Amino acid sequence: MAHHSTALDGVFLALADPTRRAVVHRLGHGPASVGDLARDTTMTLPSFLKHVRVLESSGLIHTRKTGRVRTCELNRERLAVVEDWLARQRRLWTGRTDRLEQFVTGPEEKNPT
Amino acid sequence: MAHHSTALDGVFLALADPTRRAVVHRLGHGPASVGDLARDTTMTLPSFLKHVRVLESSGLIHTRKTGRVRTCELNRERLAVVEDWLARQRRLWTGRTDRLEQFVTGPEEKNPT
Repeated sequence: MAHHSTALDGVFLALADPTRRAVVHRLGHGPASVGDLARDTTMTLPSFLKHVRVLESSGLIHTRKTGRVRTCELNRERLAVVEDWLARQRRLWTGRTDRLEQFVTGPEEKNPT
Repeated sequence: MAHHSTALDGVFLALADPTRRAVVHRLGHGPASVGDLARDTTMTLPSFLKHVRVLESSGLIHTRKTGRVRTCELNRERLAVVEDWLARQRRLWTGRTDRLEQFVTGPEEKNPT
């Protein structure tokens, strides 16, 4: 549970930046090199690399180096952690609305035959 | 677009903390006072109030003061901003998979009759 919570902290923090969200979006089209990704921005390579590191440490992307080229790939499963959390909140509201409705219509409506 | 991006920054940042996520989860059950919410944590009221302010400035919660009691309420629409962003990423992957499939099966399969 604590581990899952730490994962959420990292993923939410990584997504709280437009440059990093743009990288996630770009990698949704397929893997790309750090050089190509950096060219999509107006920042220097060292500044951009800091964002890559935040994304990598959050688990949202994987990187691998072949020769002099570092390629980034999206880890979709990590985004699912956020989707799961949001879905749990939504179930809570839906459940609350259902219970309110049940209260208004009466318990005999619970199991209509 | 810039406004939307700033909204996402604030919401993602607000959710990158277990205390603030616990408040969002708790408020999913209905409005609650700052005092009651703070009692669910082990932190002091001033420390907890900082989290309330981050949530409020992100737009995830609204607060109103009646007499000496400040009540917090969840603003579900703000969470929808995150859901929309995630849904857009997912559509991108799905579209990519569809295009790959189309490439493999051939363009004549695009509009089967």
